[in-house]
Parts: sequence; C-alpha cells; structure tokens
Amino acid sequence: MKLISYIQEKREIINLYLKNNLPSEKTEPVEIHQSIRYSVLNGGKRLRPILTMMTAELLGFSHEKVLPAAAGIELIHTFSLIHDDLPCMDNDDYRRGKLTNHKVYGEALATLAGDALLIMGINFICNNSKVKGISKESVLDALQYVLSKIGTEKMLGGQVDDINLQKKQANQEKIKKIYSNKTSALICASLNTASLLLNAKKDQFNALEKYGENIGMAFQITDDLLDIQQDNREENKSTYIKLFGIQESKKEALDYCERAKDNILLFGDKSALFIELADYIINRTY
Amino acid sequence: MKLISYIQEKREIINLYLKNNLPSEKTEPVEIHQSIRYSVLNGGKRLRPILTMMTAELLGFSHEKVLPAAAGIELIHTFSLIHDDLPCMDNDDYRRGKLTNHKVYGEALATLAGDALLIMGINFICNNSKVKGISKESVLDALQYVLSKIGTEKMLGGQVDDINLQKKQANQEKIKKIYSNKTSALICASLNTASLLLNAKKDQFNALEKYGENIGMAFQITDDLLDIQQDNREENKSTYIKLFGIQESKKEALDYCERAKDNILLFGDKSALFIELADYIINRTY
Repeated sequence: MKLISYIQEKREIINLYLKNNLPSEKTEPVEIHQSIRYSVLNGGKRLRPILTMMTAELLGFSHEKVLPAAAGIELIHTFSLIHDDLPCMDNDDYRRGKLTNHKVYGEALATLAGDALLIMGINFICNNSKVKGISKESVLDALQYVLSKIGTEKMLGGQVDDINLQKKQANQEKIKKIYSNKTSALICASLNTASLLLNAKKDQFNALEKYGENIGMAFQITDDLLDIQQDNREENKSTYIKLFGIQESKKEALDYCERAKDNILLFGDKSALFIELADYIINRTY
Repeated sequence: MKLISYIQEKREIINLYLKNNLPSEKTEPVEIHQSIRYSVLNGGKRLRPILTMMTAELLGFSHEKVLPAAAGIELIHTFSLIHDDLPCMDNDDYRRGKLTNHKVYGEALATLAGDALLIMGINFICNNSKVKGISKESVLDALQYVLSKIGTEKMLGGQVDDINLQKKQANQEKIKKIYSNKTSALICASLNTASLLLNAKKDQFNALEKYGENIGMAFQITDDLLDIQQDNREENKSTYIKLFGIQESKKEALDYCERAKDNILLFGDKSALFIELADYIINRTY
C-alpha cells in the first residue's frame, strides 16, 4: 500500500524534526523539558502533521515548506492531551500504553508542560516564516486560522462541553458538535495551515475544510470503537457509542468517510492519497 | 500628580477594550466565558498594558496603535495568574480580595480558562495587524518576542523553578533569577511589544529592555513587602524576604528603581513619566 509507506516516511521526518527542535533534556529547568519530551516523543501517530505535509504536496510543494508549522500543530495537539488527562479533567493514568504526564511528573509540572507546549507550538508555526518562499503575512494568516480552531469557539469549547456532558443530558446532535469541535477542528487546521502558508485557492481551502471535518468525525468515532475492542465494559463505552450503538456508529464512521472522499474530488487524480487515507482512518486497528 | 491621572485614564481605556472584546457571558459555552470575564474584569492594576501604551506614546505614537496587543498581554498575564493559583500550584483561594477562578468555577474550568486566555491573548496581539500603519511583519516579530518571554526560558521556567524552591535550598542569586523570569520578562514584553510594532531603534529597544528588567524586580519585591504588611505571619513571608530581610529588600527595591531611571535617560525629557512610574512602583500601597 502506497499510503502506509508514505505515512511511515513522513512520520519519521516529523519525529526527527521534533526530536531536534524541542529543547533538550539538559536545558534548564530540566524537569519541564524532560516532561515535554516524554509526552511529545512517545510514539504518537502524527496524523495531524502528516496531513499538513500531505496538503503541501497536494498543492504541488515540498513538505519542507510547511514542516515547522506541521510540528507546531503536533505540539498543540500534545498540549491538549496533557491537560485533558489531568485529574481535574478526564483523570487518565495511561495514554498510548504509558503513564500520563502528570502520573510521572506531577500535576503542577504537567499543567506547566501543557502551557509550554501551546506556546512552543505557536512559536514553531511562527518559525515557518524562516522557510524560503513563505511570507510573514501568510504565516500570520495561518496562525490566526489555527488560533480560531483551538480556542473556546472550537477545540477548547468542545472540551468544556465534554466536561458538562457528565452533568447534563447528552443527545446525538450535541455529541456530534462536541466531536466536531474537539477533533475535527484541529484536523482542519492541520490541512489548511498548509493551504494558507502556500496561498491555495479559496475553493481548494473550502474542499479541504469539508474533508477535514468529515475525516475528523470518522477518526474520533473509530477511536471510540477501537476503545471498546480493547475494553469491553459497558461503563467505559463513550457517550457517542452509548447514544448511537455499535452498528450505527460504524455506519456513521463509514458515511463520514464517504463524504470526505466526495469533498476531495476537486483535486482529481492528485487526491488518491487523501482517498486512501479516509479509508485507512476507519479501517485502522490502533 | 501627572502619573496617577495618566494611569487612571489608560486603565479605563484598557478596561473598556477588554470588556468589549472578550466574548460575552452569553457566548457558548457560557461557563468558560463567564469564568474568563470573572478573572479578567476583576479590577487589576493593568500595569502591563499601560506600559505598552506608555511606550507607544514615548515613541511618538498614539496608544491606539498598540491597544490590541496591550490587551493581549493583559490576557496572557491573567492566564498565568489563574494557573498559578490552582491547587496543584500555589493553591490560593483568594486573589485581589476575591475568590480565585477555580474556587468559583472548579479546577477543570479554571485550567481551560487559563488555556483559552493564552490563546486569546496571542490572538489579540495578532489582531494588532488590523490597526492602520501596523504591518503584519512587525506583528509577527512582536509576537515571537512575546513568546520568547513567556515560555520555559523565561516566565514558565520561572514558575517551574518557583515550584522546585520548595524542594531545594534557595539562595539569593537563584531567587533573583526566578523573579526576573516570573515577573520582569513579561514587563519587558509589555514595553517592547510597542517598540517592535512601531519599529523603534535598537538602542531604544535595549534601553527599555533594561528599564523593564529593573522595574520588574522592584515591582515584585514591593509586592512581597506589601504582602507582609497585610499578613504578618512569619510563614507567609516570601522566600525573597526571608533570604534578604525586610530592610535589605526595601533597599534592593530602591536600587532597582534607581537603575531603571538611569536606563531610561536615553529618551531625555520624554522619559519623565517613566521616571515617575519607577518611583510609584516602589512607593505604592496596593
């Protein structure tokens, strides 16, 4: 499969970039930099930065044109995971089979590591202006677009609504909105950061926006379905699966996947990898 | 006194800007926007945004040229206060005589409100590019400069070292470095964000950087001394006061203030307000 080797190749590129561009474990104060590297360099899928690089290539450019911003989005993603895992939030002890940041470094350092990763992530995006051919204007546009996807109107707002779900009655419409905000928003940002840095046309931007919305939903529902396979207890089912049931959730993921493939038709033959990716997202086993 | 009325006038401007430009309490999700407005609109001194506006005027421009960035820095300051107050950090129940954010809204929402304020603050700075005569290039430069002052190399690093102080032996040199990182760094950012937005000369930037470093130290030591006046218990003395003693701390604050006044001489007669401010910082009673 062309996609799998493509993903592996790009994952290595992003992993190397992160390893080389994060402060070392010896940089003072050492504790926070160790904590940051622990959470960032822990074998994540790197879906988001890979999407940024895929978009650059879709638009006819090298992935190198958007590499700093791609890495920045992965740092922002890691910030949201560390804070999400905190005892006052989801109170998770494990992530990707390893102890969560606060279980290793304590709550105070985990809170500050999340804050630091948000700041670093934004700084990485700013640093994309050092890439030849990328203007400071387009970097500022891309950054403001990313900010609009991660603030209280989207990603953080989704997290607030998610916390409140435990208090309030959930319904199908509400849970879809939460997934759109919590997951699809940053997926869209991953794609279209490249569009803004590389001055894509408006219809290209819009097509990618719809594609990102739909693969984000498919990705999150598939995540929930995979969780059930690993842990069959009824009480650990996500709210989404509880509301829709397993069969209907699978159908929903498939529908989102098919819609995503339609969204990307605009790019013709060049979109082959994006179509393969949409299928991969719902068929993956981890 | 010219300074007092100047501060009051500028404080009203910044308060109005914040009130009008933060999401309303009715914006969904309402809880987080209520939490954000609670902490931002709580009668802060607004020292940092006032410094940004003062610098614009020092350089011969209207304060309006830097108002969005000035407000952004105040939001970033508020983010750091909310996270600092959390139970896992300083565990403070009160700030400025009112319950801290997490005491009113809970830890989860306070954590997210801090995150959101950091994002909004950066977005406010980006929005300064909409002001006539301010280029996107200079906004990106100013933003990267602010980011360098609030990350792990400065502000957040100071917070990490501050947490570790409780475990390790403190000494005079170390506590000064912590104060420089925790307080002076954002004070410098407040001043020189205006310099970068308005293309100040390098020697002007450097003079303001030194001035900011020194008034930041004087400000933080004076804060500690004021805390003692309000709460005489030995165990509530700051580490700084414990290490230097009250008399020596007062002398240190005065020395920093005098050095700051020397730093600003470059600007000649125009620096009168900055000299008055340095004196005000160590003589204030709240």
